[in-house]
Amino acid sequence: MSKLNIAVGVDIGGTNTSWGFVDEQGSILAGGSFETCADEPADKLIDRLAKAIKSDFITIEQDKLILKGIGIGAPNANYIRGTIEHPPNFDWEVVNFVEMMKEHFDLPVVITNDANAAAVGEMIFGKAQQLKDFVVITLGTGIGSGIITGGNLLLGNDSIAGELGHITAEPGSDRKCGCGKYGCLETFASATGIVKTAKKLLAHQEKQSSLRVIQIDQLASSDIGKAAQKGDKLALEAFDITAKVLGAALANTAAILSPQAFFLFGGLANAGDLILKPVKQYMEENLPFIFKDKVDVQISGLQDKNAAILGAAALILQSEK
Amino acid sequence: MSKLNIAVGVDIGGTNTSWGFVDEQGSILAGGSFETCADEPADKLIDRLAKAIKSDFITIEQDKLILKGIGIGAPNANYIRGTIEHPPNFDWEVVNFVEMMKEHFDLPVVITNDANAAAVGEMIFGKAQQLKDFVVITLGTGIGSGIITGGNLLLGNDSIAGELGHITAEPGSDRKCGCGKYGCLETFASATGIVKTAKKLLAHQEKQSSLRVIQIDQLASSDIGKAAQKGDKLALEAFDITAKVLGAALANTAAILSPQAFFLFGGLANAGDLILKPVKQYMEENLPFIFKDKVDVQISGLQDKNAAILGAAALILQSEK
Repeated sequence: MSKLNIAVGVDIGGTNTSWGFVDEQGSILAGGSFETCADEPADKLIDRLAKAIKSDFITIEQDKLILKGIGIGAPNANYIRGTIEHPPNFDWEVVNFVEMMKEHFDLPVVITNDANAAAVGEMIFGKAQQLKDFVVITLGTGIGSGIITGGNLLLGNDSIAGELGHITAEPGSDRKCGCGKYGCLETFASATGIVKTAKKLLAHQEKQSSLRVIQIDQLASSDIGKAAQKGDKLALEAFDITAKVLGAALANTAAILSPQAFFLFGGLANAGDLILKPVKQYMEENLPFIFKDKVDVQISGLQDKNAAILGAAALILQSEK
Repeated sequence: MSKLNIAVGVDIGGTNTSWGFVDEQGSILAGGSFETCADEPADKLIDRLAKAIKSDFITIEQDKLILKGIGIGAPNANYIRGTIEHPPNFDWEVVNFVEMMKEHFDLPVVITNDANAAAVGEMIFGKAQQLKDFVVITLGTGIGSGIITGGNLLLGNDSIAGELGHITAEPGSDRKCGCGKYGCLETFASATGIVKTAKKLLAHQEKQSSLRVIQIDQLASSDIGKAAQKGDKLALEAFDITAKVLGAALANTAAILSPQAFFLFGGLANAGDLILKPVKQYMEENLPFIFKDKVDVQISGLQDKNAAILGAAALILQSEK
């Protein structure tokens, strides 16, 4: 009997680091999670991670499996250099993460940012298994995007392509972005952005809303989602404004890349059709003629799964398919 | 002595069709041009073209050369399908141009649109010979763009990527574009767009300007360029507005693609530093932090050369380099 390919997927976050042994069907055979301790040097994390992976490997049926490598998703990871560079919320400068992992494992090790890993994950395990040109957009605290063109990850110079969150979506806006600019897509269409929009509506409108009983500094995008699901008009307006800005940005992106589909992932994508339908409509309205009815928008196929680990493992398993 | 590789480059335009035998140094060894006769069926053009190419081939030193193939640049050409589809100003529907050319030549034949050919031309013969990630932007009657990522032409789904002219550059603008939308980049930053801007300034300002003596429906972008060169303030303002819109669009495009450089080509690029300097400045102002000082803007290296023929030939010669 031929052996089955598996890969380790590692998700490094500011708070927790998780890992899993993933097979080609996207099942997680073993894995775990611990605190990252981002204030400690990277080699301490790598020591703990290497030990955990090696001890988990003993628990799975190694004789039927071939471990093909280790894929890692991390903030500010550089695919080409194999580094993590000045990650926010970490006490790290530039860490040669791939090189340091290879001191523990005689295996291929690949690292990239979370959005790129999500895109490769969508291609191997999600809804993009038949697609060669698509974009995964992560709508969380910020906005990230992973772009696949012609079946390959679009990296760009210095491996920093896909900063869709930082295109200027609303010129002249007073919303300052962490990148130093104003009116970035991220300040409108992220989970944080929709909260800003709802707060502005609450301040400037008299409209009744169930959101008014929530303490203003506690308002979360999930509150707005729940209120909108129940038909709260102010919450629905916040979704409409968010979708309008995002839909127009997707149309511009489509004109440049000509993708078959966009996949929405992350916090804001939990709203499902509440975000999906108006985004589709506004994108379609803003598409140049030759792109109309050619670009799909869907919720990611990994939305309810362990996407970060699957995406990281997919970085390795993609070359096996 | 080893033989030298050459390719035929063909440029099909609404008025004239030109061709040339191009070597790997970008020299045109022989070639010619005739009227396209766009109101006649495509097979008539192909018959004439095939005869002309064959008769020119006899005039060059064939024993020292290897003809590697024929590259064609044409409006609305589809690289994947080898077709020209509904080209504006032609009485053609969908023409299988590559297939029809192959009835005359037992050689590789490749077709793509003018902007893609310009990008490959820049990579083989122009200023992008050391680059793997860049964009050529053709600023003519309209705006086209050819995108190279990782050393390859970005085609996208249906081979229609790179419609940079149709991203919405000015939301809410009343400038209608041929694509059916309003405020497209093309309505501002093309040769036609700067004329619209200058006319608006002439109508709404009292400022003295040498452009006021030109009959309004005769005003051309070259007039605005000449006036600006002489310090005409209204003409300079038209360039500034054009550069502001184009610079912001390049910054957004850079955030998505992370190119090493943009190359400006075509009518408006003739203005040289008048357009280049402010575009660079406005792009830099609009770049997200991590891209600052990483993206160059230059006038195309093929600006004063026979770019269309070189670009088309480069489609074939790129695989030889």
